[in-house]
Amino acid sequence: MSEIIATYQIYGKPGKLEAKLESIALGLTVGSWTDLPAVDQEQLRKHKGRVVSVREFYDDEHPSRFGEVRAEGKIAYPSANFTADLPAILTTVFGKLSLDGEIKLLDLEFDSDITAHFPGPRFGISQIRESLGVFDRPLVMSIFKGVIGRDLPFLNEQLKNQALGGVDLVKDDEILFENELTPFNERIVSSREILQNVYEETGHRTLYAVNLTGRTSKLRDQARKAKELGADALLFNVHTYGLDVLQELAEDDEIALPLMAHPAFSGAFISSDFYGLSSSLALGKLVRYAGADFSLFPSPYGSVAMPRDETLRIAQALREESSLAAAFPVPSAGIHPGLVPKLINDFGTDCIINAGGGVHGHPQGAIGGGKAFRQAVDAVLKGITLEEAASQHKELKSALDLWGVV
Amino acid sequence: MSEIIATYQIYGKPGKLEAKLESIALGLTVGSWTDLPAVDQEQLRKHKGRVVSVREFYDDEHPSRFGEVRAEGKIAYPSANFTADLPAILTTVFGKLSLDGEIKLLDLEFDSDITAHFPGPRFGISQIRESLGVFDRPLVMSIFKGVIGRDLPFLNEQLKNQALGGVDLVKDDEILFENELTPFNERIVSSREILQNVYEETGHRTLYAVNLTGRTSKLRDQARKAKELGADALLFNVHTYGLDVLQELAEDDEIALPLMAHPAFSGAFISSDFYGLSSSLALGKLVRYAGADFSLFPSPYGSVAMPRDETLRIAQALREESSLAAAFPVPSAGIHPGLVPKLINDFGTDCIINAGGGVHGHPQGAIGGGKAFRQAVDAVLKGITLEEAASQHKELKSALDLWGVV
Ligand SMILES: [Mg+2]
Ligand SMILES: [Mg+2]
Repeated sequence: MSEIIATYQIYGKPGKLEAKLESIALGLTVGSWTDLPAVDQEQLRKHKGRVVSVREFYDDEHPSRFGEVRAEGKIAYPSANFTADLPAILTTVFGKLSLDGEIKLLDLEFDSDITAHFPGPRFGISQIRESLGVFDRPLVMSIFKGVIGRDLPFLNEQLKNQALGGVDLVKDDEILFENELTPFNERIVSSREILQNVYEETGHRTLYAVNLTGRTSKLRDQARKAKELGADALLFNVHTYGLDVLQELAEDDEIALPLMAHPAFSGAFISSDFYGLSSSLALGKLVRYAGADFSLFPSPYGSVAMPRDETLRIAQALREESSLAAAFPVPSAGIHPGLVPKLINDFGTDCIINAGGGVHGHPQGAIGGGKAFRQAVDAVLKGITLEEAASQHKELKSALDLWGVV
Repeated sequence: MSEIIATYQIYGKPGKLEAKLESIALGLTVGSWTDLPAVDQEQLRKHKGRVVSVREFYDDEHPSRFGEVRAEGKIAYPSANFTADLPAILTTVFGKLSLDGEIKLLDLEFDSDITAHFPGPRFGISQIRESLGVFDRPLVMSIFKGVIGRDLPFLNEQLKNQALGGVDLVKDDEILFENELTPFNERIVSSREILQNVYEETGHRTLYAVNLTGRTSKLRDQARKAKELGADALLFNVHTYGLDVLQELAEDDEIALPLMAHPAFSGAFISSDFYGLSSSLALGKLVRYAGADFSLFPSPYGSVAMPRDETLRIAQALREESSLAAAFPVPSAGIHPGLVPKLINDFGTDCIINAGGGVHGHPQGAIGGGKAFRQAVDAVLKGITLEEAASQHKELKSALDLWGVV
């Protein structure tokens, strides 16, 4: 029988947590059990939730409630109870329950029957690599900076410089919406021309991810228009729209563009230690299932950083063995060239090195910034230190002088 | 100049919070300011965020960080920076910022220019009252119970009994999705017949809110089909879909059905004292703006209850003076007839008294439960005590014997 297994974190008195989970498992499925007539039990058996396991961590005491310890409990929900879409699944496993005191949803396990209803990334790591012809190193991405209120020539200049620096991808600022100065369609058309020129000049191909925004029911047509105009990829603020909206974009064969999931707004439900969703579920597994080819999340290196082990779990959820394609982890914020050894050590080569200030703030501008990142990546893959590489590459030297090596 | 004002809760050292807010106001709009050339400042002035006010609460110290106090700060975001839709607004005011440490979004103030882009409730309190012909008392609502895995005759029997008890509304269980035993269309068709029969028999009209579920892009057609089949109202798990999805349903003239926003999943982002959204914003103002005619939220009386002042702020946000229609507050969970005086005292008459166990768990079943609630409401409005009324009404008497008076 097909089912989804949800893992929750709860706190309670040792020995009392199984009963608590038992009442959740019934409350969120058939409602009651022991007081049901046998004939009803027979009818409802295949709809009944069940507790799969409980682990109590006796050393992990609640910070303020005396005698309560942390526990992780797994409940299996029969898929007979819901349709195989994320709104139904999230309502089932964390609908009313999300409002029921201190409880956090850590993970969801989808069996193969349920997984088959999800597209996963249309391109994924391997096809994105194919399209760029880059197979053996992390990709480098750069972000537009300070574009609110600016016109198209301003953006075009930024785009050109970023591409000339040799980055593989450039993404829109997620707060750039449809506007008169830099309309969506014009951004796509002018980016094509600029990136084509850079390619002809340098032989280097850069992809541009345009921010797909606006009303929900218009996204599909707008994305199809983007495809028609030759867009390379779409950036999407999935957590202000809904995971199912992302999934429908991913499933649409007439869109068929790489999708980049931005974590905007997700801090509202992943930041608490006691409530909400784990970051690996929200920014890892669920966006991958829904079809993101890239998932951005806070790096462990910035000023307000996500703990390193959390970021590693996100990356794991995006890339672990599955019938679905793997998605690129994009640890973001606070990244400069001196961090590249640490980044590759933490995230391996199948990740995106993504920088804003670390590109634009370079003493030789975005061109120098992009070059410094590429030089840093090459050095790490060759097994030489950044300092050594900097002796031969002035852009990397400037970057290390400014930001240091971590 | 049109703008949205966001109110945040942050913690920090007294006297340092204005600078922190200043950097947020710039970071989420034009990026930088003082180092910009005068000509750029001229161009960007109308896009620049600004700090409107900061209130530091010196007595409200951070529970774990010494020397930090709670503060509420207001930032104005020019609407030149975003399109007037909730995904763009939430990404602007709480996108990246939601991931930036301990910060909670308490409120959004929409000026009249921006408010004009939102539908608000299509029916609202006054038109729902018109359609029921009930003007002077809280409405009573009842919820199906234990319907997972049950067939249509089972649901029909529950519906009939609930209606015979005299409740004004019956809503689907939010975890009831499209399924073979009780398909959406059949639930609508059979409910009409049952409720019409009860009306002919008793003269009492009950409305049924059917749960609108499934893939996002299919919701519109399914809702239109519901309308065509004569549905009374739609229940919607808005927080697993997205607020803009609710808004598009509300705006659709071919749907034009009352919409009931369920709080499922909202606990993920309203429960923490430090992160996420205030409940009055998420379950009050935003669902009202997006077009909900009813908003369910945890009552302050249940076993795991929302604090009373929070629930009152939700009700206020749903009903306060506005160019948009008012929506019904529906405090839910743990409600029995003995609570009616408290409910009316707290929420007034423009609310829905909503019960599940308090209806079905009545010694005389759902019929008795509904009657007991109606008797309790009548007593309060007549200014007599429940005990007094119970001496003349056996259903109320049974309820008070079982649950007491609060
Ligand atoms: Mg940004
Ligand atoms: Mg329910």
